[in-house]
Amino acid sequence: MKAVGVIVEYNPFHNGHAYHLQAAKETAHADLAIAVMSGNFLQRGEPALVSKWYRTKMALLSGVDIVLELPYPFATQKAETFANGAVSILDAIGCQSLCFGSESGDISTFQQTVEYMNTHKEHLDEKIKMNIKTGVSFPKALSLSFQSLSSTENVLSLDKPNNILGFHYVKAIRKQNSSIVPLTIKRKNADYHDEHFTAETIASATSIRKALFSSAAGNSAIEQYVPEATSTLLKQYLKEYGNFHEWENYWNLLRFRLLHSSPKELREIYEVEEGIENRLITAALDSGTFKEFMQKVKTKRYTWTRLQRICVHILTNTKKSEMSTTLEKAAYLRLLGMTKTGKEYLNKYKSQFNLPLVSKISAYKENFISLDIKASRVYSFGLPTQHAEILLHQEYKQPPIYVETER
Amino acid sequence: MKAVGVIVEYNPFHNGHAYHLQAAKETAHADLAIAVMSGNFLQRGEPALVSKWYRTKMALLSGVDIVLELPYPFATQKAETFANGAVSILDAIGCQSLCFGSESGDISTFQQTVEYMNTHKEHLDEKIKMNIKTGVSFPKALSLSFQSLSSTENVLSLDKPNNILGFHYVKAIRKQNSSIVPLTIKRKNADYHDEHFTAETIASATSIRKALFSSAAGNSAIEQYVPEATSTLLKQYLKEYGNFHEWENYWNLLRFRLLHSSPKELREIYEVEEGIENRLITAALDSGTFKEFMQKVKTKRYTWTRLQRICVHILTNTKKSEMSTTLEKAAYLRLLGMTKTGKEYLNKYKSQFNLPLVSKISAYKENFISLDIKASRVYSFGLPTQHAEILLHQEYKQPPIYVETER
Repeated sequence: MKAVGVIVEYNPFHNGHAYHLQAAKETAHADLAIAVMSGNFLQRGEPALVSKWYRTKMALLSGVDIVLELPYPFATQKAETFANGAVSILDAIGCQSLCFGSESGDISTFQQTVEYMNTHKEHLDEKIKMNIKTGVSFPKALSLSFQSLSSTENVLSLDKPNNILGFHYVKAIRKQNSSIVPLTIKRKNADYHDEHFTAETIASATSIRKALFSSAAGNSAIEQYVPEATSTLLKQYLKEYGNFHEWENYWNLLRFRLLHSSPKELREIYEVEEGIENRLITAALDSGTFKEFMQKVKTKRYTWTRLQRICVHILTNTKKSEMSTTLEKAAYLRLLGMTKTGKEYLNKYKSQFNLPLVSKISAYKENFISLDIKASRVYSFGLPTQHAEILLHQEYKQPPIYVETER
Repeated sequence: MKAVGVIVEYNPFHNGHAYHLQAAKETAHADLAIAVMSGNFLQRGEPALVSKWYRTKMALLSGVDIVLELPYPFATQKAETFANGAVSILDAIGCQSLCFGSESGDISTFQQTVEYMNTHKEHLDEKIKMNIKTGVSFPKALSLSFQSLSSTENVLSLDKPNNILGFHYVKAIRKQNSSIVPLTIKRKNADYHDEHFTAETIASATSIRKALFSSAAGNSAIEQYVPEATSTLLKQYLKEYGNFHEWENYWNLLRFRLLHSSPKELREIYEVEEGIENRLITAALDSGTFKEFMQKVKTKRYTWTRLQRICVHILTNTKKSEMSTTLEKAAYLRLLGMTKTGKEYLNKYKSQFNLPLVSKISAYKENFISLDIKASRVYSFGLPTQHAEILLHQEYKQPPIYVETER
């Protein structure tokens, strides 16, 4: 069986995702699609709208056959580390190809760019260093350096978010000597950051979340942009758990953390550096909301995303020492769900996977994947107390989601 | 001017306290009463019903002239350390006497008991060790050892809570070579632990708190047992801050702390020992309320009070390393409030105090008394979010309470 891999967050799953999946399977001539999906906290340093279990259900009901969790140490990370983890998982589970959406849509550009960067590495690093000194963020410095160096070559424009991710996927494939074939599909409509609905049936996840949080009608406003499964599951989530998750739900806890920790303790947290801890504490004292807090803390150098990731690590109490193991490759395949076809694939090939497949966490293995467990526990605190209980224990109790679909 | 010292929690100030104050001033022939009062967290490991500022107002309006805060490192502690801190403060501010309530009511018994214990120390320590080995708590072991050794002497019954405290006050006075004269008054009615109203106008603080939390009428049920000032201030507190403080308000935060900390991190917290951290984490996973949690954690060896103190230290993130300085004497006099008479006393004698008098915390002195600041910040999280703001900042902004009373 031929499997195509996709790297996703599905926050939530929408028509754009469905289109991408369909196109990925066609382009790759694949029998099934395997998704590596962030868990409860996402790459941009945010809690997911709904739990990873619900997002897994959405995926399985709309075209994915196997959902694996991108472990916490890779999920809430800059693009490079995120890509390393995701690619290593797709490689370990035997995907022949990886198909990602991009603004560019031309895979040869990605490959040439990676090639170019490898051969001009020193020169580029120097440029980046110089640009960082002017006070810009790393992604900005990379993009600027690149533009200045590569004017005559056929290279990728690295100021587009999906191009950046794709670039890192291709780079990771090469670095890991993986046999995965990278493929890309040009993204349809809706830019990643669009906050408003622009097309008729395809909208960005950002605009969908915005609609869900802002309108009382909520769900009905998004129906034309998401598969029915998503719409139904979102309604069900609200009924079962009382609210969707957003940073504001965790503000009280984050503030509590910041106000009873010493700067020294905060410096032990992953990514807390350069005295940002003092800025965070001072801002926490005077901020009634997460948004207010972020506006106080933000600087040119610290992007909103980077700060949010730091906040996630503070909230989950993730130490530098816990993350110090190499972040080049994932250590396990955490199965969140599968369809009938997915199950067939797993049964057929699991003896060949070169990472352990974890279907259910036993209470006795807590050190193993302890960061995912901690993240899930913390995530449950974003619900009203009376609803948090199930989610708190789900990490241990939930077997992989199974959907009786055969493709 | 002659000052009598009292050591109090006023949680809340009631008629029994008023009676004690009056009797103390008379017995000591004092011109004014100086109270050392626990801050926002109390000796038995509980958040105070209302903030230390409100409790200070109650005290000043009902007979106390100067209120000093017993710093956090002494307040949430076993009787011996609590007494060391409180006595050192009363000594530093120049009290000629200390008057405490007791079940015994006979000061000579206290003095003889301290004398006896000093001369029989080794023998007693041995007995205590033996008793602890049978699995009982320290206070119980002390009381048992004492009874078995001292059958023929005129000694104190150390199984009464106020006798225990009094014993430690007298012991601390002796140990610190203080010139303070200890005095005691037999407690009127109402045992410390009484949960129900037993007398006509005097009730235990425990029963008063119970009434406040249990009845919708709340306040009117307690009016006959508290001075009018207390009653008015309790009503005002509810209006200003939304609720009284009790452990349940902090359960979500304590649980969050327990579920995102490793056992190793918890072992760094003051008083967390002997593997209790694992018990705490396991119980936290399955407890919806603080009460449920405590019932799961309690053992014969760990008294309810000892466990509650541990929980306070976990909540406030107070490390062993932060408490490692000697707990023999306080390092400063934190002024919470005064009457006109109190002010006169302070002006007259402050040059003779042998500890610094702190009237207002400047933001620039944060390391100084940092544990009190942290405790106050954490205490504010027991209020509904919209009310927490004032309390969070009060530690810096509140000047000492002043009441225009002259006695």
